Order: sequence, then structure tokens, then C-alpha cells
Amino acid sequence: MRFTIDKEQFLKGLLIAGRGIGAKNANPLLLCFKMEMTNIGLEITASNGDVTVFTRVPLKLNEKEIIRNYSLGSSLITARSLTEIVRKMEGDELSLDIIDESVAKVDDGNTTFKLPCVAADEYPDIDLEKTGTVFSIPCTDLTRIIEQTAFAALDKDTRPILTAINLKAEGGLFTATATDSARLSRKSVHIDESVRFFANVSAKTINDIVKLFDNNYEVEICSTGEKMILSFGNTTVSTRLIAGDYPISKSIVPQDFNYSLQVNAAQLLNSIDRVSVLSTDSAAVVKLLMTNDGVEISSSGDQNGSGSEKLSIILYTGERLEIAFNALYVSQAVRALGSEDVVLKFVGEGKTFVIVDPKDDSIIELVTPRRTR
Amino acid sequence: MRFTIDKEQFLKGLLIAGRGIGAKNANPLLLCFKMEMTNIGLEITASNGDVTVFTRVPLKLNEKEIIRNYSLGSSLITARSLTEIVRKMEGDELSLDIIDESVAKVDDGNTTFKLPCVAADEYPDIDLEKTGTVFSIPCTDLTRIIEQTAFAALDKDTRPILTAINLKAEGGLFTATATDSARLSRKSVHIDESVRFFANVSAKTINDIVKLFDNNYEVEICSTGEKMILSFGNTTVSTRLIAGDYPISKSIVPQDFNYSLQVNAAQLLNSIDRVSVLSTDSAAVVKLLMTNDGVEISSSGDQNGSGSEKLSIILYTGERLEIAFNALYVSQAVRALGSEDVVLKFVGEGKTFVIVDPKDDSIIELVTPRRTR
Repeated sequence: MRFTIDKEQFLKGLLIAGRGIGAKNANPLLLCFKMEMTNIGLEITASNGDVTVFTRVPLKLNEKEIIRNYSLGSSLITARSLTEIVRKMEGDELSLDIIDESVAKVDDGNTTFKLPCVAADEYPDIDLEKTGTVFSIPCTDLTRIIEQTAFAALDKDTRPILTAINLKAEGGLFTATATDSARLSRKSVHIDESVRFFANVSAKTINDIVKLFDNNYEVEICSTGEKMILSFGNTTVSTRLIAGDYPISKSIVPQDFNYSLQVNAAQLLNSIDRVSVLSTDSAAVVKLLMTNDGVEISSSGDQNGSGSEKLSIILYTGERLEIAFNALYVSQAVRALGSEDVVLKFVGEGKTFVIVDPKDDSIIELVTPRRTR
Repeated sequence: MRFTIDKEQFLKGLLIAGRGIGAKNANPLLLCFKMEMTNIGLEITASNGDVTVFTRVPLKLNEKEIIRNYSLGSSLITARSLTEIVRKMEGDELSLDIIDESVAKVDDGNTTFKLPCVAADEYPDIDLEKTGTVFSIPCTDLTRIIEQTAFAALDKDTRPILTAINLKAEGGLFTATATDSARLSRKSVHIDESVRFFANVSAKTINDIVKLFDNNYEVEICSTGEKMILSFGNTTVSTRLIAGDYPISKSIVPQDFNYSLQVNAAQLLNSIDRVSVLSTDSAAVVKLLMTNDGVEISSSGDQNGSGSEKLSIILYTGERLEIAFNALYVSQAVRALGSEDVVLKFVGEGKTFVIVDPKDDSIIELVTPRRTR
């Protein structure tokens, strides 16, 4: 195998495929890119066993020649080394040449690197064929859905199913739900009525995948029963499904509220941040005391001291209510909404409350309160 | 004690004094600021036992009232908490009030924090009086001297005296030397002939101290035999001297060179960075092969592969020479010089070499080479 390639496009391909490479792997071949020069482009595959990324650097892009002077072939090259040297090289174009099957020579006319490489037939077989229902949605839509929900998934492996984001398409709605059991985030968008789809996939992985999207494309999605496969542009990604029943039903969202607090999102975030500054615990607890006279927000840093202030509000309706919550949960929910104002709606003391954007009912954030002392 | 104070000036004082606070301390009182309201200003003292910082926020600054409505007194307040709440508060002015000796109330009219505090008489006695020779140099000069040398000191405690920077004034020269025994950096500036001064102080500490300098001031320096004291503006810092004989004599700087390589500093740094990219070791070894035909720079990442390129040079004089060195040592030395071009001068294979700025003979960098296999 040999080829001469546009440096920028080569690096772009390596960085995309690099999302499939883990920091460590028991199988050292899975720290390599599989590189295959074909008659339609340079194909780069990377996999950590759970996630596989395949991408193709085409021969031409917008009439510009990207790859020239190539001979077909394939090889395995350590992903980190190859990415780092390509990043550092200064030429606009560089050539890669496999010498005697065990050394890859990379050269930009000034700098020469020699990297060890391995025959490609030692790489595990990877199946990226899409089977079953395949549907498409715009990359921008899926990105927004994931950004607004994935943060609420459990971030440790104590209950694997809760590290998943639950994706579901039925009855004309595509819905994503994530929860760590103390808070929940759910977002729905309209989709063709015929689409039926279910998958539980790692929230962390899908959050990484959407970062690869080129927003001009649509993404094609299917679930094979074992994995979810996403294709966009020249790239295909598969991620293993997380086994188990996703433990959330529609009925957990409260319906009748007795208290409603509308505030500017930025002011609420600032106040939470300020009054919780003395907490050494990462899970700072903040308290709202709401009355018809105003709303006080406060936090106790225990032996470190305490802070309180009057919260600037837009509107409060309801009697006196005291609610304490995990500052991080409410801050993340408010940021996920991304709206100018937010409305917090309460059923009563100790009851799960919701945070919504008054102008967008496609997304809902639920938070379980903490005990007030 | 109580006072109402300009927030920006208060925070500035806390951040300066904060340099005297360690991350941990066996004595919890040394995690506190000693705050004392006097008739000339608010005095803030912080100490970790080795380093003490004292600073005064004046009552007025450039005719502007900084502190008003005060009553004399003193108290100890946790440094980290006080700094964080002042940083987060939004008012332009805030007041601090000691309530019943054990609680400090800090208020900006909107947000109120309550912090625990302790009577100031529990704080250790700290003597910052200057005795012996006191001399002055511009803050900018001392900053540059320290920036250009301190990096070469040993960064671990295996030989405490080598963690020091050696400061010496005699015969009209003020000289700073730092070495970790494998490389050395030395810078001299002219000073009044009458000044005689010797001190070995922690390179890390003095590097932190010069960051506090206000460049419009001169810094007054003295050494009491146990500590070095520096005063600038409203701030005084003391740092404990490091005991022991500093192990460097003048004779270690080689005098007669047989090879000389002049290169653009930025190009040398880039080439070193590029060819050493495959090294996983933090101490990457880079090799120069110099001949009359040109200079090749190369590095072996061992099992990761190797990189080499032709180095762009300005001038090389000498026969064929091969020299290997720690990439970090040479890069740090070149950066410390801060010049457009640098000259590397060699005595011969395996011998200590020097790196100098061809336009400035006040500073010299020495590096011991590594074996070329």
C-alpha cells in the first residue's frame, strides 16, 4: 500500500476514526487503525470492541484531488502515533508507504517518520451492515436531542442500564430519555409515523458520536438487535446496545402542579453558583424558600459557612413552599433547556418537580428534591 | 472589626496574600488569613510556615476611597472560603463584620455569607523586619532574571539544595544560578558595587513571588540569615533560605569551543517538538548530526517508531559532530533565552555544551549531553 494524500483531509479522517480508539485495550491491535487503500478512497476503521468507527477519505472532494499516486493494500498502524505525527507535520501533502509489511514510512518532503505496522488480516472481523428498519433524521436534530438529554444518565456503572440513553420512535414521535433515577431528561421530536425503533445505547458514547456529525448531512439510523448503526457522510459508527429493560414509564411525570416559579435562566444559574460556593461537596444542596413576598435562595456549606440571597424572579404563583435540591442537577437541567426563561413547577414539598422552557414543550426535566434538613 | 471595602481592591489583596497559603497544612490556622483593620488600611497576612505574605489594602488609592465605615480589630478567616465568596459576589462594594468573634458576615446588599472565624491572637508570631544589607532593584529586572533561570532547578526533593536558586551580589554583579546537575542556567545583571548578598531560596517559591510584582515598583531585598525578605508596593514576602552549600563553581562553564551552530530559535523548537513526537517518555532524547553538508535532527521513539528531518540552520562551523540531548532541557533553555536566534557551542562529543543568545552575553545555558548509543 502507498498513497500521497492531502494532509488536512487525512488528519480529519484520522480524528474521526480516532473516536473509536480507547485509551487502553487488552488487544493491542484495537489500538491500531486499519487502513485500506481502495479504488474509491482510503478507508480507516477503528474499534474498541464496543464502538466501531469507519470513515473514508475520498479520492476527490469538490473536484479537488485528495489522494494520488496510490497502490491498493491495507495495514494496521498505531492510531495515536499516526495521528500525532500527521498533526505535527508541516507539509500540505504527505505520502505513506508500507515498506516490507512491517514499517510504514510517512514523509512530507522534509520530515520522515518510520512507524511499525502489522498485516491487516490480523484485525478482527467487523460487521457494519445495516439490517431492519433504517430511518433518517437531520444531524442537527439528533445532536440537539442528545445534548439536551444525555447529561442526565448515570455516570457510573452501578446500574448499567441507567448509563444508557433510551431512544424510541413510535406513533410519529422520536423520544430520547436519560435518567440516573434522581433526575430525568426527556426530549421528543416529530418523525414519520411509520418509523418504529428502540435502542438503549451508552449516553457517553452517543454524546461522543454526535460530535463527529457534519451538520449538512442527515444521519441514517438502524438497530440490529445487538448494536445501533449510524451513517452520515463518509462515516459509519456502530455502538453496542446496553442490555436490560429501561426502567421509565410515562406515568412518572407529574401532571398537576400547585406552585409555579418563572425566572431568568442566567440569573438562576448565577444565584445557584454563588450561594453554593462554600460547599466542598460536589453535590451542593441549595434551598428555595418561596412566598408571595419573594424567593430566597440559600445554601449551607456546613462548617465552612453559609450563603443566601434574594432571587430575582419573573413570577411566582402559589403559597409558601420550601424545596431543597442538588445544585448540579438543577443547573444542568436549566442549561439543557437553553432558553432565556425557565419555569419550575412543583406539586408540593418532597415531591419530584419539573423544569421546562415556557416556549417549548418538546423537552421536560424532572428533579427529585432533597430533604430540607 | 468591621469595614466596607471596594470589592476589586479587596479581592486583589486576598489574591496576593493567597500566595502564602498552602493547599494543606497540619496547622489549620495557617489555612486562614489574618485580617487586621488598622488606621492606615486593612492588613492581610498569610503563611504556610515557609513562605509568608503580608499585604495592605490602603484606605485610599489615587484619591479614591477604598475602605470606609470601619472599626479597628482583627480576626482569622479561612482563606479559600473568603477568596471564593468575594470573587463570586456581584456588588462593587461589600462589608465585612465580625459578629460575636466567631462569625464573619460578608454582605454586598444582595447576597449574605456567614463564615466561621477565630480570634487573631491564636495566630503564630511572624517577624518580617528587614535586618542587614537592604538593596533595591527594579521588579521587572528581578522577574526576568528569575524567569530565565528558575526552570533549571531540580523539581524534586532528592537533593534539597538543588531545588534552590542561588542568588549572589558581589563586585557589581547580581547573579542567579539554577541547576539540577544535568543542566544549568545563569544570568547576571549589573548592580551597585557596594552590595554584597547571598541567598539560596526555593526556585518554585521565588517564581511564584515575582508573579505578585507590580512592575512600576522597585523591590527591596534583604537576607536575615534565616530568610530572604522582599518588599514591593504594599506587600512584603519572606521565604525561608535553603540550607547547604550551593555546589556550582565558575569553572564548570567551558571556554574553548570547536563547533558552533547558529539557528532560528522558533525553527529549532519546532523541529525538536516534531521529531520527538513519538517518544512516550517525558525525557525524549533528540540527536543532532552536524556536518558541513547540513544538520540532521532525529529522534527514536523506540518501539513506537522514529522521526528525522533536515534542520534549517543559519551557520555551522566545525567538523562532523553527533550530539544527543534531553529534548526538554534544550527546549526550555532556548525558550529562556527568548531571542530570535540561538547559538549552540560544543567542545566535543560527550562534553557539556552551551546555548547562548548571540546578542546578549548576560545569560548562559549549559546542557550535559546524553550518550549517542
